[in-house]
Amino acid sequence: MKKRIAIDMDEVMADAVSKHLELFNRDYQENLTVADLQGKKLRDLRPHLAEQISAYFDQDSFFRDLKVMEDSQEVIRELSEHYEIFIATAAMEVPNSFADKYAWLREHFPFLNDMNFVFCGNKSIIHADYLIDDNVKHFPNFCGQGILFTAPHNIHETGYVRVNNWKEVRAYFLS
Amino acid sequence: MKKRIAIDMDEVMADAVSKHLELFNRDYQENLTVADLQGKKLRDLRPHLAEQISAYFDQDSFFRDLKVMEDSQEVIRELSEHYEIFIATAAMEVPNSFADKYAWLREHFPFLNDMNFVFCGNKSIIHADYLIDDNVKHFPNFCGQGILFTAPHNIHETGYVRVNNWKEVRAYFLS
Repeated sequence: MKKRIAIDMDEVMADAVSKHLELFNRDYQENLTVADLQGKKLRDLRPHLAEQISAYFDQDSFFRDLKVMEDSQEVIRELSEHYEIFIATAAMEVPNSFADKYAWLREHFPFLNDMNFVFCGNKSIIHADYLIDDNVKHFPNFCGQGILFTAPHNIHETGYVRVNNWKEVRAYFLS
Repeated sequence: MKKRIAIDMDEVMADAVSKHLELFNRDYQENLTVADLQGKKLRDLRPHLAEQISAYFDQDSFFRDLKVMEDSQEVIRELSEHYEIFIATAAMEVPNSFADKYAWLREHFPFLNDMNFVFCGNKSIIHADYLIDDNVKHFPNFCGQGILFTAPHNIHETGYVRVNNWKEVRAYFLS
């Protein structure tokens, strides 16, 4: 039986940070870049705007046109030949995002089976051998091996198997 | 640690069959009842209308105003004191239903944690000790104990732990 890999969406398959920064910079006349976010989230940099910063995710269509992370399509397609692939996204944190996330996946990853999409919150419910995620909070109660996908906010996290990009995911699973 | 129960929505928490029959009878001048559906689905009774019958589920708001199954609120509240409760619904089969299903759960089961809602397709991804479901297809690859919740279409299924209503669920888990 094929082993099963669950893959997170935001900051792993979909580049939400770039769009978030772009909208924030436009609305608040700032020039923040990904370099400013090392080890932090945007709300940590501008705590007095935390509410407004979170509100971007609730906007209709925020998640619909995110850029696809480099090499993710190619590598996930390759992985799908050897592993059972599930997509596991914490969509319950942003209930407005359900339809957009579904449409985005169908557009950019049409080779995936939508019966293997999981919109959840608490990812301890995921029954898989591996979970590739940028958020370490999902790992302690996950039943398999957590794999931390590098994102600006998590660069100081230690004690996890880490991959920095999709080429490293390929090397981990297919070499 | 509390054991974990995953609970399906349609025909377990939410009465989709009654509304489906009501709309079908209205549109096709029929008088079908639940008694006609013993061991069958509506599409088995009227195979020449299978496509139209499925299309009801894609209508906006079909899932928003379903009746709550008798005793489910009370029993799930009691279960939640002794077990970790997750809701696991095959929403990917009807992507239009995401927002309605979420709003329905928030309205009728406000005591549940929405981080424990799982919208999925293939339920073998669910990591739980029990799965209460009306559809036997989810049991063979489920990692825990499947519990068949009686619905008209499944009355002839054998070989499963079966509960006929929420009072029997209470007796199974809490007596």
